[in-house]
Amino acid sequence: MKLNQNQNIEILIIGLGLLGGSYAKALKKKGYTVKAITRSQSSIDYALENGIIDDGAAEIRPEWIRQASLTVFGLYPTVLIDWVRQNGHLFPKGAVLTDVTGVKSGIVNEVQALLPAGVEFIASHPMAGREVYGVQNSDDSIFHGANYIVVPTEKNTEEGIALCKELGRELGFSRISVLTPEEHDDMIAFLSQLTHCIAVSLMCCNDNENLVAYTGDSFRDLTRIARINDEMWSELFLLNQKPLLLEMNRFRESFDELYTAIQNGDREKIRALMRLSTQRRAKFDKKG
Amino acid sequence: MKLNQNQNIEILIIGLGLLGGSYAKALKKKGYTVKAITRSQSSIDYALENGIIDDGAAEIRPEWIRQASLTVFGLYPTVLIDWVRQNGHLFPKGAVLTDVTGVKSGIVNEVQALLPAGVEFIASHPMAGREVYGVQNSDDSIFHGANYIVVPTEKNTEEGIALCKELGRELGFSRISVLTPEEHDDMIAFLSQLTHCIAVSLMCCNDNENLVAYTGDSFRDLTRIARINDEMWSELFLLNQKPLLLEMNRFRESFDELYTAIQNGDREKIRALMRLSTQRRAKFDKKG
Repeated sequence: MKLNQNQNIEILIIGLGLLGGSYAKALKKKGYTVKAITRSQSSIDYALENGIIDDGAAEIRPEWIRQASLTVFGLYPTVLIDWVRQNGHLFPKGAVLTDVTGVKSGIVNEVQALLPAGVEFIASHPMAGREVYGVQNSDDSIFHGANYIVVPTEKNTEEGIALCKELGRELGFSRISVLTPEEHDDMIAFLSQLTHCIAVSLMCCNDNENLVAYTGDSFRDLTRIARINDEMWSELFLLNQKPLLLEMNRFRESFDELYTAIQNGDREKIRALMRLSTQRRAKFDKKG
Repeated sequence: MKLNQNQNIEILIIGLGLLGGSYAKALKKKGYTVKAITRSQSSIDYALENGIIDDGAAEIRPEWIRQASLTVFGLYPTVLIDWVRQNGHLFPKGAVLTDVTGVKSGIVNEVQALLPAGVEFIASHPMAGREVYGVQNSDDSIFHGANYIVVPTEKNTEEGIALCKELGRELGFSRISVLTPEEHDDMIAFLSQLTHCIAVSLMCCNDNENLVAYTGDSFRDLTRIARINDEMWSELFLLNQKPLLLEMNRFRESFDELYTAIQNGDREKIRALMRLSTQRRAKFDKKG
């Protein structure tokens, strides 16, 4: 099956939040039939009224699960596992499933083990989001210029991986990569989770409210992501505890090195660290 | 003297870099006569060719120093002190001088002590900049929407303070505040210097170049200022060592608190910290 050769394909989204809703918008525009199952009736109502989905239900619809050519889970990690434990038996042989969750090692193997034989779960991670949530804030433009990572295990087939890459392209992502669950989680621990830890800590460490009047761009940039969905991110942090603690330690060592140089008045050391950071950041600019 | 009541006023800029050049552009547009003294002849040539200044020299011009109604030092902190030590005697009684340096306590008293009686140095800090340097990159639009802080000591007069505020308005700053040198340096240690320490450390702590391909907005935002002028910032850090080390310690405590919560799997603690950061960041959004 190729997604883009047959526009009469049904895609089922389970969990219609910011990402699920953004997927629905992008896929509807491409001509797919998009159905959604989610807990909240008001999310379904909103999505139907705004033409985001073709049909939706706040309860399990076994026939939709059987009919879908592709199912996308837009659920929090632990909710995803619970859902598959309860309802995984409803998927027919040949069904292909993917997700949007931000950690993989702790999820993929468990979900794959819970599903019936012949049902393929191929994990993926859309590297896009916003500081707001809910289908009401969904926006498929967030995928443009962004990265999409397919995260297969040895249980996945070439066809499943190809289908998932195609989904990334159909959604409008600019770069599609493939990583193992472990590579993915190490990368995420550094690039995404550590940065959120830093932003939260920076926002928490000084309670002087008068400083608000003097804020410049540096502080604003570093704390943008300190506005954070605590339910989701605390779950993601704990599911990726080991790689995250490792990256936090690395950062702490680097920060301590700079602290000691400042304490010792070691200007050459400070400058060497700044030159290293300038050099490295330039690479991130170029290839970005 | 009121700057904006007489457009036939001469302003002298000593040190024609990014900020000095941006001041010159803004003040020329307002009709002032702007002259510059700076070490590099090529900076003078560029500024003259591009109409950024009315006249310029790569050597001391005692008559310009005597004539200027206002002198602005666009020099690095230690260079400023050396310059005033060598040439401060050239200023006539009644001259008013200001600067652009990013730290104050270690500078203001020393500069004031080096100047002849009757010469007023009133410190100020334009909270605007770019990651590039030199008069070639000067741009007076960086002042719009930005903060300008006047930093008087007990040696300053009401007239000097008023003139300096007027300069901030003429340059196009959106908010003009007054802080003591100590308040200024504490504020800068947190909002500006700590954020640069974090960005540099984050960029230095992981040498995996493959991660470049997966960077998202969070990492880009947090490391924008990791591209840093090591000569200037190492000087600023060391001149503000004590407040900076204090803020670095506060941040480290806050970061360690989050680390311990993640290590202990203490989800409620993690969520409490995230809720605090979310709440505080919202305030920074509103008042910004």
